[in-house]
Amino acid sequence: MRIGVDVMGGDNAPHEILKGSIDALQILGEGDTLVLAGNRQVIEEGLSERGVESGQIEILECGESIGMDESPVEAVRAKRDSSIAKLSKLAGPKAAPEEHLDAWISAGNTGACVTAAQMNMRRLRNVIRPGVAVTVPTFGGPVILIDVGANIQPKPPHLAQYGVMGAIYGQKLLDMDNPRVGLMNVGGEEAKGTSGLKRARELLLETPGIDFVGYVEGRGVFDGEAEVVVTDGIVGNVMIKLAEGLSSGIFKAIAAEVMEVDPELALRFEPVVKNLYARHDYHEYGGAPLLGVNGVCMISHGSSVARTITNAVKRSIQYVNSGVNEAIADALEASSEAFSEEANA
Amino acid sequence: MRIGVDVMGGDNAPHEILKGSIDALQILGEGDTLVLAGNRQVIEEGLSERGVESGQIEILECGESIGMDESPVEAVRAKRDSSIAKLSKLAGPKAAPEEHLDAWISAGNTGACVTAAQMNMRRLRNVIRPGVAVTVPTFGGPVILIDVGANIQPKPPHLAQYGVMGAIYGQKLLDMDNPRVGLMNVGGEEAKGTSGLKRARELLLETPGIDFVGYVEGRGVFDGEAEVVVTDGIVGNVMIKLAEGLSSGIFKAIAAEVMEVDPELALRFEPVVKNLYARHDYHEYGGAPLLGVNGVCMISHGSSVARTITNAVKRSIQYVNSGVNEAIADALEASSEAFSEEANA
Repeated sequence: MRIGVDVMGGDNAPHEILKGSIDALQILGEGDTLVLAGNRQVIEEGLSERGVESGQIEILECGESIGMDESPVEAVRAKRDSSIAKLSKLAGPKAAPEEHLDAWISAGNTGACVTAAQMNMRRLRNVIRPGVAVTVPTFGGPVILIDVGANIQPKPPHLAQYGVMGAIYGQKLLDMDNPRVGLMNVGGEEAKGTSGLKRARELLLETPGIDFVGYVEGRGVFDGEAEVVVTDGIVGNVMIKLAEGLSSGIFKAIAAEVMEVDPELALRFEPVVKNLYARHDYHEYGGAPLLGVNGVCMISHGSSVARTITNAVKRSIQYVNSGVNEAIADALEASSEAFSEEANA
Repeated sequence: MRIGVDVMGGDNAPHEILKGSIDALQILGEGDTLVLAGNRQVIEEGLSERGVESGQIEILECGESIGMDESPVEAVRAKRDSSIAKLSKLAGPKAAPEEHLDAWISAGNTGACVTAAQMNMRRLRNVIRPGVAVTVPTFGGPVILIDVGANIQPKPPHLAQYGVMGAIYGQKLLDMDNPRVGLMNVGGEEAKGTSGLKRARELLLETPGIDFVGYVEGRGVFDGEAEVVVTDGIVGNVMIKLAEGLSSGIFKAIAAEVMEVDPELALRFEPVVKNLYARHDYHEYGGAPLLGVNGVCMISHGSSVARTITNAVKRSIQYVNSGVNEAIADALEASSEAFSEEANA
């Protein structure tokens, strides 16, 4: 297996990404290779500083990199020598077989990853539109939220496909037994929401093989109402950013309050917070796959640390071995024609 | 001033609503009247149990009430004798002058309140579509989020008007000096989002008299990027429910973790949490006005307690006295024709 890692992407690039890649060498199989994409000198220096010499590492020299705030479409088109553009191409159908990547990982510009993957990897058979599936560590267990930004105006068949893709991903990769699928809306009642949501609900109700539980509300994500939550890219994106900002804000506020009310308490409170973080740690999941592309594109959090990248490599290997993509394509086969027609109408 | 209170609405109705109304008697002006809507016997018993006899209380007998989970449009149409239907009518233009309500408050079915208010109160001059403005108590200060469920598919001029309405509400009612207005999107860059969001951004940029800071992201709400955050009813609704579910989930998880790690710590941790709750307390704001109707409709949280209702009465009096509605209508005058044309196109 060949797995590409974007050494130039993310807030902690290149050092944490390199460190995480090196740590991942231990989990590679015998014939597996890590392809580190980025500035050759930076990568070589990073490896030699750590005394790493491995036949399982290849360097993919990239003369450019895409910044976190660059406009995705323009950046991917203009910067053909960037790590994101090159990795996505090598994961696509036009790559030479000996260079082809089974998966690639980036903690860089999310929009650019999505754009590059869609442009260069093509879609998986029977999939109309790919969607990013983030695993949110809630107190009731992991919840898969799809989509969180790849598709900001999904049509009903896109949403219905997300339900199927999310459920299969949960089963194969996250040990979910029979994940309940919910559709995000403003209320649980049938009459709520836009005509698009109502139609998506109908399609999900008709979809065999998934346990569709109907609409869920914003609080349902943390109340254990479903293991897979389907939504459009705007709502999903706002949700994960809000959850992140709010939880870090709450912990900061508690810390400040503890210091004010009872400074001695702060020391004793620290292990409590550490335990909570350890149990509900998004780094654990490594990254969010762009489900529905023909291959594996794993998008890691911008603030990924070494551990995140090591986990992303581990998850990518599991992803390839689990046959998620084949299962998704097969599951969507029967509805494929009708869904495509409706989406294009 | 005459203020109506829906005694039958909310999870803690009727007792907490009655208690809150009785407490509110102290803040009424001499000529002010509270109109308590609901089952006459329940209200009379509640008053006499507490030994309350007041010439400033009127009872509006209602033979029906609308449940929290009823379908709003159907319920409002069918239950003409419900507290929500009757209060909204008395706050509208067809009420007899001596019965007319300057404001009404309900902690009942939010959708029914919105539907009844729009049906019976009419729109404020120059407003195209009303929107619910919730005040979110963040660690950086209160943030106004508009809309959170009245308008699930807003057109760009609706969103632009929400920016103006939210800013004026913040200035007049929440002591905000020159509130920054942000438009919720998936990223800060100009190229992000749907065509509708891009057009709303253009309209907000052209709108005089507001400090428009562009797009804000999900985490921006808690990062102090804007005091007024404009969004559609689905995103806004998901946001407030998510924030509520997540913050209560975090505090529960911390409590459980503290009990496990260091039970003695629990006692000392309690005042910290109480302080935090006290400082960031949504009950403080009483309710969320449906901005843009011709009058005052204050929608309180379903889990309102007595204190929430007392605050809602206080805020309603301030609302009427502050001239928010006149200021909104005047501010929207210049753009009114062009906005209406664009919204109807």
